[in-house]
Amino acid sequence: MALLVEKTTSGREYKVKDMSQADFGRLEIELAEVEMPGLMSCRAEFGPSQPFKGAKITGSLHMTIQTAVLIETLTALGAEVRWCSCNIFSTQDHAAAAIARDSAAVFAWKGETLQEYWWCTERALDWGPGGGPDLIVDDGGDATLLIHEGVKAEEEYKKSGTLPDPASTDNAEFQIVLTIIRDGLKTDPTKYKKMKERLVGVSEETTTGVKRLYQMQANGTLLFPAINVNDSVTKSKFDNLYGCRHSLPDGLMRATDVMIAGKVAVVCGYGDVGKGCAAAMKQAGARVIVTEIDPICALQALMEGFQVLTLEDVVSDADIFVTTTGNKDIIMVSHMKKMKNNAIVCNIGHFDNEIDMLGLESCPGVKRITIKPQTDRWVFSETNRGIIVLAEGRLMNLGCATGHPSFVMSCSFTNQVIAQLELWKEKSTGKYEKKVYVLPKHLDEKVAALHLGKLGAKLTKLSKDQADYINVPVEGPYKPPNYRY
Amino acid sequence: MALLVEKTTSGREYKVKDMSQADFGRLEIELAEVEMPGLMSCRAEFGPSQPFKGAKITGSLHMTIQTAVLIETLTALGAEVRWCSCNIFSTQDHAAAAIARDSAAVFAWKGETLQEYWWCTERALDWGPGGGPDLIVDDGGDATLLIHEGVKAEEEYKKSGTLPDPASTDNAEFQIVLTIIRDGLKTDPTKYKKMKERLVGVSEETTTGVKRLYQMQANGTLLFPAINVNDSVTKSKFDNLYGCRHSLPDGLMRATDVMIAGKVAVVCGYGDVGKGCAAAMKQAGARVIVTEIDPICALQALMEGFQVLTLEDVVSDADIFVTTTGNKDIIMVSHMKKMKNNAIVCNIGHFDNEIDMLGLESCPGVKRITIKPQTDRWVFSETNRGIIVLAEGRLMNLGCATGHPSFVMSCSFTNQVIAQLELWKEKSTGKYEKKVYVLPKHLDEKVAALHLGKLGAKLTKLSKDQADYINVPVEGPYKPPNYRY
Amino acid sequence: MALLVEKTTSGREYKVKDMSQADFGRLEIELAEVEMPGLMSCRAEFGPSQPFKGAKITGSLHMTIQTAVLIETLTALGAEVRWCSCNIFSTQDHAAAAIARDSAAVFAWKGETLQEYWWCTERALDWGPGGGPDLIVDDGGDATLLIHEGVKAEEEYKKSGTLPDPASTDNAEFQIVLTIIRDGLKTDPTKYKKMKERLVGVSEETTTGVKRLYQMQANGTLLFPAINVNDSVTKSKFDNLYGCRHSLPDGLMRATDVMIAGKVAVVCGYGDVGKGCAAAMKQAGARVIVTEIDPICALQALMEGFQVLTLEDVVSDADIFVTTTGNKDIIMVSHMKKMKNNAIVCNIGHFDNEIDMLGLESCPGVKRITIKPQTDRWVFSETNRGIIVLAEGRLMNLGCATGHPSFVMSCSFTNQVIAQLELWKEKSTGKYEKKVYVLPKHLDEKVAALHLGKLGAKLTKLSKDQADYINVPVEGPYKPPNYRY
Amino acid sequence: MALLVEKTTSGREYKVKDMSQADFGRLEIELAEVEMPGLMSCRAEFGPSQPFKGAKITGSLHMTIQTAVLIETLTALGAEVRWCSCNIFSTQDHAAAAIARDSAAVFAWKGETLQEYWWCTERALDWGPGGGPDLIVDDGGDATLLIHEGVKAEEEYKKSGTLPDPASTDNAEFQIVLTIIRDGLKTDPTKYKKMKERLVGVSEETTTGVKRLYQMQANGTLLFPAINVNDSVTKSKFDNLYGCRHSLPDGLMRATDVMIAGKVAVVCGYGDVGKGCAAAMKQAGARVIVTEIDPICALQALMEGFQVLTLEDVVSDADIFVTTTGNKDIIMVSHMKKMKNNAIVCNIGHFDNEIDMLGLESCPGVKRITIKPQTDRWVFSETNRGIIVLAEGRLMNLGCATGHPSFVMSCSFTNQVIAQLELWKEKSTGKYEKKVYVLPKHLDEKVAALHLGKLGAKLTKLSKDQADYINVPVEGPYKPPNYRY
Repeated sequence: MALLVEKTTSGREYKVKDMSQADFGRLEIELAEVEMPGLMSCRAEFGPSQPFKGAKITGSLHMTIQTAVLIETLTALGAEVRWCSCNIFSTQDHAAAAIARDSAAVFAWKGETLQEYWWCTERALDWGPGGGPDLIVDDGGDATLLIHEGVKAEEEYKKSGTLPDPASTDNAEFQIVLTIIRDGLKTDPTKYKKMKERLVGVSEETTTGVKRLYQMQANGTLLFPAINVNDSVTKSKFDNLYGCRHSLPDGLMRATDVMIAGKVAVVCGYGDVGKGCAAAMKQAGARVIVTEIDPICALQALMEGFQVLTLEDVVSDADIFVTTTGNKDIIMVSHMKKMKNNAIVCNIGHFDNEIDMLGLESCPGVKRITIKPQTDRWVFSETNRGIIVLAEGRLMNLGCATGHPSFVMSCSFTNQVIAQLELWKEKSTGKYEKKVYVLPKHLDEKVAALHLGKLGAKLTKLSKDQADYINVPVEGPYKPPNYRY
Repeated sequence: MALLVEKTTSGREYKVKDMSQADFGRLEIELAEVEMPGLMSCRAEFGPSQPFKGAKITGSLHMTIQTAVLIETLTALGAEVRWCSCNIFSTQDHAAAAIARDSAAVFAWKGETLQEYWWCTERALDWGPGGGPDLIVDDGGDATLLIHEGVKAEEEYKKSGTLPDPASTDNAEFQIVLTIIRDGLKTDPTKYKKMKERLVGVSEETTTGVKRLYQMQANGTLLFPAINVNDSVTKSKFDNLYGCRHSLPDGLMRATDVMIAGKVAVVCGYGDVGKGCAAAMKQAGARVIVTEIDPICALQALMEGFQVLTLEDVVSDADIFVTTTGNKDIIMVSHMKKMKNNAIVCNIGHFDNEIDMLGLESCPGVKRITIKPQTDRWVFSETNRGIIVLAEGRLMNLGCATGHPSFVMSCSFTNQVIAQLELWKEKSTGKYEKKVYVLPKHLDEKVAALHLGKLGAKLTKLSKDQADYINVPVEGPYKPPNYRY
Repeated sequence: MALLVEKTTSGREYKVKDMSQADFGRLEIELAEVEMPGLMSCRAEFGPSQPFKGAKITGSLHMTIQTAVLIETLTALGAEVRWCSCNIFSTQDHAAAAIARDSAAVFAWKGETLQEYWWCTERALDWGPGGGPDLIVDDGGDATLLIHEGVKAEEEYKKSGTLPDPASTDNAEFQIVLTIIRDGLKTDPTKYKKMKERLVGVSEETTTGVKRLYQMQANGTLLFPAINVNDSVTKSKFDNLYGCRHSLPDGLMRATDVMIAGKVAVVCGYGDVGKGCAAAMKQAGARVIVTEIDPICALQALMEGFQVLTLEDVVSDADIFVTTTGNKDIIMVSHMKKMKNNAIVCNIGHFDNEIDMLGLESCPGVKRITIKPQTDRWVFSETNRGIIVLAEGRLMNLGCATGHPSFVMSCSFTNQVIAQLELWKEKSTGKYEKKVYVLPKHLDEKVAALHLGKLGAKLTKLSKDQADYINVPVEGPYKPPNYRY
Repeated sequence: MALLVEKTTSGREYKVKDMSQADFGRLEIELAEVEMPGLMSCRAEFGPSQPFKGAKITGSLHMTIQTAVLIETLTALGAEVRWCSCNIFSTQDHAAAAIARDSAAVFAWKGETLQEYWWCTERALDWGPGGGPDLIVDDGGDATLLIHEGVKAEEEYKKSGTLPDPASTDNAEFQIVLTIIRDGLKTDPTKYKKMKERLVGVSEETTTGVKRLYQMQANGTLLFPAINVNDSVTKSKFDNLYGCRHSLPDGLMRATDVMIAGKVAVVCGYGDVGKGCAAAMKQAGARVIVTEIDPICALQALMEGFQVLTLEDVVSDADIFVTTTGNKDIIMVSHMKKMKNNAIVCNIGHFDNEIDMLGLESCPGVKRITIKPQTDRWVFSETNRGIIVLAEGRLMNLGCATGHPSFVMSCSFTNQVIAQLELWKEKSTGKYEKKVYVLPKHLDEKVAALHLGKLGAKLTKLSKDQADYINVPVEGPYKPPNYRY
């Protein structure tokens, strides 16, 4: 795909797979709206006052149908938006087309190369001469990373005239990032500096991105305020847990049609994502074995009836392997060689380095047979046994299915909208410093409350007397900050 | 699609959607073989002796990847095979292509019209001048029906010269059947007579088809022996139950991406299929309400924590409706009008008359919006609320997903192979009269045994002393005939 | 306890532990009545016509609160009743006291010796000079066994003058049976002959008892008609399954207070009882391993996510062992010696020979420490490790808890009442020969229907058109005889 | 029971129900030790160094078998201990007897009056002339409350000569507290002052007690350091959740023998306790309805498939009501009057004011029928319908069963031991001020780690490289402080 920016008749830029899918995308967006009461409530509550009037928002987040509803909520509140995906396989092309045609500048398609991926990220950040963005919606932190690396390189360049050297790293993806920055430096050596100066803040979606932000905060290198959306209860305890509980079996079934009942599934990691995955596999009739480093999470797994062992203990016996750790080097090629024929290996937790894809690709004599996109059988020459790797080791629920369903994403994305509103409202007050913040509990509770009606729930109301007895306001928040839910 | 039979280079007839998908089909067939130990064991055990040498087998059964492994098991045992699907939406086109190219005459594609469907059925039964088939593998009984109706019409024609009159019925599909028979009568007034005379027997896959067979047996109109595969324990208690438990959520997710957790799901009927569906919805986090006519099944549902109500009680509150009754007129258009906006309505139990599709289509002012194939939103003009109907009211797991997974179909289809072997072996012994038979328990147990190794199970062996104590042979069968499992 | 029959002021015989518990028993009986809608409906429907007028009924069935409601239903319908328990540990003494005081002749207490047990059985069958019983309600078949053995001995005695020789058997319990018969022969050599001649029939409650009956039918030695209540769907698929699902954890918790979550539980056998037990352990958070001889049941276990192994594979790793097989010699002393310290061993399926109690008791150096009644720790001298055996290897739910709860027993016992009514009504018609019968399906469905209202369920009604379509009467029965539920 | 302190032969004080149960208690304590690996590890690790040498510890915590193992761990580490229960029904008399005989001064029996309860609390705090205690283990905060109220009264008395006036409060229990303090003031007007001056600190077990502590901290009235054991993950996410999941059905079954399957259970509150209760009822086959005030918890309940309604919506339909809120006035007598006959009402969350016991007792015409201790049927005269109230509205799992099982209490109590060790070790360092502290995460993880081996779990070890990648030490702690698990 030639990397040329296209324009709609109204002059808005985009690059998507197939604009003819826009109508299909629109139909699915309309379905999703019914399932996303939090976002629709935001439109109803804030739309009239246009709070984002004048705000330029860049998003780097899986360009799915659900994200389309988020984008159109931002635009309904007055924002101008440019968007890219944060994963090469996660774009739904019909969603991208509908948004590109109707609402925002989109640069995303399913099956980008890494080169294309970073080109899209650059485009989403490129607001032209007037500058921008004012705000970033980030997922995994790649947009934030690019700016931080850009600023670092510009400062070094200014100081020493040194350009970043892609050959300085082994990491293929980071080579691309450095190349982009290097090439950019030649034409505008203050591009990222201007960007960070304009930026009001970022709201970050995921555990992984948040971890990066806290590290930068700790190192004193964070360049702008950040709101940690991931740790809203209505995000991490919903999207991570219930979203994965839904989308892991969905991805497995779409990719392989395999019967889950009766199989042995190994879930590596028992955090929120792992809890959702283990529950899903158990419910589908699999026998689940958990691997963990953390004794508390391990004990939780045991209390739910899961066996806790190491990967080495079970690698030859299990049928399905899922990584959810947020760490790297979890399933190595040495493990894969010991697996049963047609064992399924996938990752739902993090980047593709949870699974040793590099080791697999470079394994002598290995043969890759693509069953269909995102479903590959890798056959080892020594044994003639194959394993099935989903989504090339990347997030299998987005690569092989459609990611989390609308309802749970409505919780996450309502947090995003509220975080963006908060950053924008306080842009000149100095309330937010170059630190990482979480949303206050009453907003978290509000997000939940917006989703109850759709499910027919009725809340009990505290009496004043009862509220006093447990020392909370009648209207909440009802729990101390550290409450674990 | 023009209804012309095509031929492979080797001269075998076929009609499929897209022969270029044969390679993809072959890859998925190879994956499925690993998941179908029962069928692969049959190939190993019986292949060398070629027991089906000379047998011509017609199949009318969803032309999926799993069925492909069945077909190639039949051919591996020496049979010649012609095949059609038994549902207009259930064909997987890549499976059809691979089989058509490599193994058998196939007439099937996803999205047939009813006209096309019955043309395919005719083709699968049409073995040319030499006659045939010797055996039928049936699912739902349409191939059997066509022969019985054909014979009836031929006899009437012979007696009175009267041709069947398509206008004599309101049922659109039956009009097509009568038209086909009428047109055939003109060219060969003994086609079906010859067919039934040659036929050794049929093995029937489903509850619905079996019900028809027992009715014919009771009426004395059954024209050839039948083996009821459906009531093998390893079929009805596995495929119906565990298959649907897998494929209902699969179909829902592929068709609508809807979050099941938190929703209210109504499962109409709590037989084996309904039990699987209710379990699946509960496990996915839905609240399940069951409707039942049978007090025993109703009490079973209650014991699992399901609420048992009538459809009228809950029609306005639920989000997902699934029919599993095997009866007709379960969800009427009057119900659908009362449903919530975007309620999902689907059928996994039987023909499309479980849902009042006719009433829906003819509802004044109703508007159909096709989101994607097999996913339609029907909007009522009075309320402007829409409902989402899957697979046009037909089997949603086959229409919207890929049907049951390979492993459970291996159980069902191993029963089919054993039934076909039995019919063929006894073709001249008179063992089987024009009646309906079930397979003996030791064969049922054998089917199960063939599937244990794949799942790592180890059976305990009875001692002679223990066997005597409970009065069974050491090698089984272990249960009395009426044991319910 | 001296084995002397006592009499109430009204002259009715009894032998119970403590008559002062009658008031407490009465209160619990009243609670149970609310939970036993089937029995209470029988009283309402049949009470006025007194169908059992003149009938003398002997029962040999766990003398619990639930059985008390059964007995008082029989007496409410006009019967005269004598009762004993069918297990030395299963009597609830307050229930026995209330019935003895208010309603029927009871011979039962918790913790009988085997000697006492058979004395009680004799008493329950002893209707004095007028003879009796007319009907037997049996559980496990001990009352039936005694009569059959008695008749056999009397015939032998008449023929050859030979008395039965207790020394002819190794089985301690059978020695007692032979002794009783031998001693009886001396005073009345036709006691059992007269009994069998008067007997209208027996209704049998359990799998084990039914198995004995079918064996006698097969051997041609069955002396009177029998109704197999166990195989009513509303018995075997309810009491066995849901009853044990409730009472296994209940018994474990009362006996040992052990945390089930996180433990490894081995369930030997995956029939109805085993299914209930495995489900209960899984739900409580244990990891469950099933042992099976039957490949079909094994495959069912796998489909629910249970591992299927042999006892040898897991004997050293598991924490809880439950036998549910209905066979003998399942857990031998050689297994027990390999178990972890304080592993729990219990039986919920059958007689105490499922567990090798004899081997345990006679194991050299073994030491028995009674924690509390029915909870013993047996310590092996070699290892100094102990295991905890519940209820001396007998039914642990009755020995350590209170057996199945009222609601599910209401299903079973309503079948008993209906069976007894049927036998009595047809006593002179010859409808029932010396064979084993099951109740017709419409009565089975009736039993279920009587239990729906209590749980707030509403049945859907078939239209005539729908009933015709599936070829059943509008009012049922709705399923073919072999339907498996 | 006369309130006289007794003495063992060795001179240690006690007051228990029945010293002859000590042997039985000892046997059960020995069983529990095998299930409490955390406490036994503490004995092994710390026993040799006798860290509590010289420490006088008062405990006010349910005097059960599990607590006995805790007490003997404290004494094994060198402490001298006095103990009372924190609930009038929760003592297990055989545990109290064994401890009183063998290890510590115990004042506790099952079924204390409130008067007796506070007498026991006073005794446990009464270390005689030498003063004491040095440390308190508290549960619910009653020992802490007594000291705080005592100090307040002494200060007021010193200032103004005013004695506390029991008539100043409506609360019957608080009247007793004031009476005790008033009477004490007359003999020693600085008793509580001396106590607080000596006190090194308290470790508190429960949500309710912790809430009180934080309120005192906020008001500046907390008199000594406190460690919040409740909010250790290995306490609140284990004991509250998994403990109640075990002990709710246990209590229901022992108290009422009622079948849970098929029933409608209302769980008021969906915190950790409510989550455990709802899970238990669902697993046992009930249909569960949750009431909540907090929208986040409500949404969690919905995601698990529970219906969320208000008590008013369901009060007439449900069979079982459980309060878990930690608040008051949840189920009022007006609710109880609307319930079905024999609906079960119980509390597992907090004090008996969750249920309106006062309103029930004073309801005109109400009649109380005691089925057995802790199981009362209350009949309303207007309707003649009764409800069954467990444990007089107090913690039903402790009143009607034996509380949480040993394994989960081992987690909680290991936290207690570690907290007590920490307070004692730092008694002179000033590390702990008059504030509320939680244990550091590495100790929380240690508690979990001590419990893995018993369940056969094997942890995965982080490589240095992986640890760096996620920025944690190889040996943990592995999670940020606010991680929710």
